[in-house]
Amino acid sequence: MARIAALAALSEQPDGLTRTYLTPQHQQANELVAGWMQEAGLHARIDAAGNVVGRREGREPGLPCLMLGSHLDSVRNAGVYDGMLGVVTAIECVAALGDTPLPFAIEIVGFGDEEGVRFQATMLGSRAVAGTFDPALLDLTDRDGVPMREAMARFGLDPTRIGEAARRREDVLAYVEYHIEQGPVLEDEGLPVGVVTAINGQARFRLTFEGMAGHAGTVPMGLRRDALAAAAECVLVAERLAGERPQAVATVGQASVSPGATNVIPGAVVLSLDVRAPDDGVRDALAADILAACEATCAKRNVRLACERTHQLGSCACAPWLRGQLAAAVAAEGHPVRELPSGAGHDAMAMAALADVAMLFLRCERGISHHPAEAITAEDAAIGARVFARFIAGFTAGRGGA
Amino acid sequence: MARIAALAALSEQPDGLTRTYLTPQHQQANELVAGWMQEAGLHARIDAAGNVVGRREGREPGLPCLMLGSHLDSVRNAGVYDGMLGVVTAIECVAALGDTPLPFAIEIVGFGDEEGVRFQATMLGSRAVAGTFDPALLDLTDRDGVPMREAMARFGLDPTRIGEAARRREDVLAYVEYHIEQGPVLEDEGLPVGVVTAINGQARFRLTFEGMAGHAGTVPMGLRRDALAAAAECVLVAERLAGERPQAVATVGQASVSPGATNVIPGAVVLSLDVRAPDDGVRDALAADILAACEATCAKRNVRLACERTHQLGSCACAPWLRGQLAAAVAAEGHPVRELPSGAGHDAMAMAALADVAMLFLRCERGISHHPAEAITAEDAAIGARVFARFIAGFTAGRGGA
Repeated sequence: MARIAALAALSEQPDGLTRTYLTPQHQQANELVAGWMQEAGLHARIDAAGNVVGRREGREPGLPCLMLGSHLDSVRNAGVYDGMLGVVTAIECVAALGDTPLPFAIEIVGFGDEEGVRFQATMLGSRAVAGTFDPALLDLTDRDGVPMREAMARFGLDPTRIGEAARRREDVLAYVEYHIEQGPVLEDEGLPVGVVTAINGQARFRLTFEGMAGHAGTVPMGLRRDALAAAAECVLVAERLAGERPQAVATVGQASVSPGATNVIPGAVVLSLDVRAPDDGVRDALAADILAACEATCAKRNVRLACERTHQLGSCACAPWLRGQLAAAVAAEGHPVRELPSGAGHDAMAMAALADVAMLFLRCERGISHHPAEAITAEDAAIGARVFARFIAGFTAGRGGA
Repeated sequence: MARIAALAALSEQPDGLTRTYLTPQHQQANELVAGWMQEAGLHARIDAAGNVVGRREGREPGLPCLMLGSHLDSVRNAGVYDGMLGVVTAIECVAALGDTPLPFAIEIVGFGDEEGVRFQATMLGSRAVAGTFDPALLDLTDRDGVPMREAMARFGLDPTRIGEAARRREDVLAYVEYHIEQGPVLEDEGLPVGVVTAINGQARFRLTFEGMAGHAGTVPMGLRRDALAAAAECVLVAERLAGERPQAVATVGQASVSPGATNVIPGAVVLSLDVRAPDDGVRDALAADILAACEATCAKRNVRLACERTHQLGSCACAPWLRGQLAAAVAAEGHPVRELPSGAGHDAMAMAALADVAMLFLRCERGISHHPAEAITAEDAAIGARVFARFIAGFTAGRGGA
C-alpha cells in the first residue's frame, strides 16, 4: 500500500492522479519501479517503447518466461490501484520467492500506456511488446499538438527503434495480469478474488458535428443548425441503444464545443464514443446502430457528421489451462472460485497476440474505478498477493504441463 | 471599410477575429480608435474602465452631450462588423460635421466589453459608464484564473477607481447606437436600415451537473450517473421549450466535461444557458420552465444540478422621441421606415440606466453574426452612415425639443 501511495504521488496534477505516456511523471514512475524490481532480485531495464521490464532468471539463464504485468499510466484524475496494483504485487510475489530455483524465468512489465489518454490510442506499451504496434501511430498528436514520435525522443527513446520492444513467441510461456475488478460483481458476492474468462471487445470513434454558428439572440429556433443540440441527441441515442442490449455499454466521455461562447450558437462539436460488449458481433451491431441513428439525427437537423474509428479491439478469451492454474491457487488459499468476464480492456488483450493470457481480479469498493474514490482494503491486497504468489510458484508451462 | 479591416487585424487568434476585454489587442484597438477620433476633431481619452472616449464640444465648452458608440470587443472567431461598425461610423459622421457649431456636445465611446467572453459577464464597459458596474464583478476570473481586477491592473487601470468611469445624467442628452442587425429581417424585406423599437431581455445561467465518474467498460448502463447524458437531455429540453414560444430563444453555447477521457463516464459537466425574449415575463417563464425540466431530468438520473444566474438584463424600450428623429433621418434619405425589435443585446441596454436610448440597424447578409461569415456591403455602409450623419446633424435634445 505504501508503494501504491508512492506511485500515486507522481502526478501531472497537484491534487489527484494523472500520469500519461511519455511524460516526466512516467519517467519517474519507471525509475521508482525499476528500483523496486532490483531490490526484489530482478534485472530491470527500460525497453524501446518506454515500458519498464524486470527479469528473474530461472534454473538456468535464458529460459522462456512467465510474463506478469500491468500498466503504470492512468486516466485523468484517476484511482491509484488501476494498473499499478498488478505491477507492485507481481514484484512482491517475486521477492517472496527468494532464491527458489524455478524451471522458467519470470518477467514483470510495467507498461507505459494502456489507457490511451494522451494520444487517443490505447495499449501502446503492450502492443509494442506483443509486436503489433503500428508505426503509423507515431504520427498521432497529443492535445498540445506534440506528435508521439517527438514525445518519445524527448523521453530519451528512438521512435525508429520501437520494433525492438517486441518479444519472440518462444520466449514467453504466458502472460498473466493481476488487476482490480473495476466492477461490482465480486463485492456483491462477498468474494475477494475472481478468475477472468474473457475480456470484452471495444471500439472507439470520434464524431465531428458541423452545424452553423450564429448569434444566440437573433437566429430563431427554427432556423438554427446547432451542432451541440445534434450532438446531445446522439449522446442520448448511444445511451438508449446500449441500454437495450444486455452486458453492452456505450460511453461519450469527451465533448468539445466550438466556438464555445455563452452567446453563440455552437457551430461544431467533437464527441468521443466508446462501445463495448462481450461478443464482437453484438458490439459491432450496437456501434452500427448508434452511428446510423446519429446520421439520421444530423440529416434531420442539417448538421454534417463525420465519423472516424480511432480504436478497435476484439474480445479476448483467457486460456483455459491458465484459468485452471489460477483457479487452483484461489482454491488452495481457501476461497471459492468465481469466474467472470472483464468489462474493462486490459493489456492482456494486446498480449494475446504474443502468448496465451489470463487474469486474476481483486475485489474493489462499489465497482468504482477511473475515479479518485477507487478503493481496496489492505486485507484484500494481502489475499490477492498470496493467491498470485501461489500461482507463480506452482506455475507449470504449457497446456498440459511443460 | 478599411478601418474595419484594420481593427479586425487586432486579434488574439492568427486566422480570425477574437478580441476580449483588457487584452493587449484591446489596448491596440483603443490606440487605433483614439487616433481616428483625434483626426476627426474629437478629444480622445481612455476612461477608468478601459473604454476609449472621444468628445467634440458644442457651441460652447461643457454642454451636455449626445453620446454615440458601440463596443470594440468581440466573441471568439467573430465577425468584424458587430460593434466596430458603430464606432467607426460615428467617427466618420462627426468628421463630416467639420466645424459646424452644434447646440450640444458629441461624445463617441468604444466600449471595451460588451460580449462578456472573457469574464462571463457582459456590458462591463457600458455598465461602468452608466454607473451600474458592480465592484463585486472585479473578482470574476477568466479561464486562466486571472481575476478581472488583476487584468485591469495589467492593462494600466486602477480597479479601485472604476467608479470614475460613471457619467452624470445631466451631462448626457441621449445614447444612440448604430449596429448591424445580426438578424435576417431587413434583408428579407429589401431595406438597408431599420429603427429599433426595443431590445429583447436576456438571462444567462451556469448549470453544473454532478454525477459519478466511472469506468466506461465496467459500469452497466442501468447503474450509471452520467453527467453528460443528463446535460444532453437539458440541452434538448431548452431547445424544445424555446421553440414552443414565438420570438423566444434559448442557447447552450458552452459545455465542459470532466474528467474528459474517452474511457471514463463523465462525472461533471458545466453548461451555459442563454434565454431571450421580447417580453421579460415570457423570458422568465421560459427560463423557469427550462430549469424545472432540468431539475426533473437530474432527479430522475440521480445527478446533482446546481444552477447559478450569471447575468440578467430586462428588455429595454427605445425612447419614442429618439425613434422619431431616427425615422425622420431614414425618410429624409429616401428609405422606407421599418421599425423592428432587436434579438441581440447591446450596450444601449446598459446605457438606458443613464439616459434615453435608441438604435439604428443596418442590414447584414443572411442574418449571420458572431461568425467569420458576417457581412455587409460597402453600399449599405454608406447609406447607413448618411442616415446616421443626418440624424446627428439634426439632433434636437429633449422629448419635445431642447
